[in-house]
Amino acid sequence: MLNERQKSEVNARLKRISGQIGGIQRMIDEDRYCIDVMTQVSAVVAALRTVEELVLENHLNTCVADAIRSEDEPEQRAKVDEVMEVVRKLRRRG
Amino acid sequence: MLNERQKSEVNARLKRISGQIGGIQRMIDEDRYCIDVMTQVSAVVAALRTVEELVLENHLNTCVADAIRSEDEPEQRAKVDEVMEVVRKLRRRG
Amino acid sequence: MLNERQKSEVNARLKRISGQIGGIQRMIDEDRYCIDVMTQVSAVVAALRTVEELVLENHLNTCVADAIRSEDEPEQRAKVDEVMEVVRKLRRRG
Amino acid sequence: MLNERQKSEVNARLKRISGQIGGIQRMIDEDRYCIDVMTQVSAVVAALRTVEELVLENHLNTCVADAIRSEDEPEQRAKVDEVMEVVRKLRRRG
Repeated sequence: MLNERQKSEVNARLKRISGQIGGIQRMIDEDRYCIDVMTQVSAVVAALRTVEELVLENHLNTCVADAIRSEDEPEQRAKVDEVMEVVRKLRRRG
Repeated sequence: MLNERQKSEVNARLKRISGQIGGIQRMIDEDRYCIDVMTQVSAVVAALRTVEELVLENHLNTCVADAIRSEDEPEQRAKVDEVMEVVRKLRRRG
Repeated sequence: MLNERQKSEVNARLKRISGQIGGIQRMIDEDRYCIDVMTQVSAVVAALRTVEELVLENHLNTCVADAIRSEDEPEQRAKVDEVMEVVRKLRRRG
Repeated sequence: MLNERQKSEVNARLKRISGQIGGIQRMIDEDRYCIDVMTQVSAVVAALRTVEELVLENHLNTCVADAIRSEDEPEQRAKVDEVMEVVRKLRRRG
């Protein structure tokens, strides 16, 4: 789970991303040059990557670390598997 | 440039993406599990990739094709360079 | 198709990549630190990306440009579809 | 560090990757169709991703887990930072 400071940071980033999506919608409506639209979409993807990384880093430092400290081997494996699955998804989908 | 049908499709997708971003903000506020948040972020990245691909495909079929048909060699090179630069950006940033 | 200069360049890069793969095999045998191994794998992926980009750029400037100049609309669409499919693959697989 | 079974698996994969690189060199020499070359390069990138994922998963289950179990907070943070840096590199470079 994210602490309050992290939640504010992630929410501020998501709010900015919403604004960027609105900007892309306007670019489409105004028939802006395709390359400029793609560059903007690319910037939003980069911003989402930063959100993912903040959440993943926190997840490793909290949930995964707790599972490891519990000395419950299957639980640790399960948490690491889950992280690996999401790392694969982050990469493949993107 | 996108034609009217393509503009509607892209705008419909961007609208859905805005909704998904709002959904992620709610997940953060409700302290939802990090892995679920990342999976959602991943889904938004995939949706943005589809938008990029629609715009890129159209760009190849219109602007790049026009530059090639003009038989203006430097103009063709410039358009292809521009596409390569955006392909690199789409990939690196993501 | 690649011209002779491009073939030499791509082959030189592939040769260097083979050497890098050999280097990674040695790192594994010598029990080198995982992070260093991954950094090396990452460098090989980046080198392969450059090869892909050289081939894609050339493909746009030759085969795709020829299809467009032929003024054969279905042929142009087919070539652009093929490029889009490979762009998706380059991204998803990576 | 990888155990003996993992080392064999990774080395077998790297050997196969070397073979695939040789195959791409032959495709270049034989002037094979650009799209087929890119599809092959893409397959090698996917194979390298699997190697990265094996190494990363093992790293989380060994080095990172040890750092967390040591209850040495700065050491844990350092290991997680290192993982995040490599995750970013794996993604950006690719």
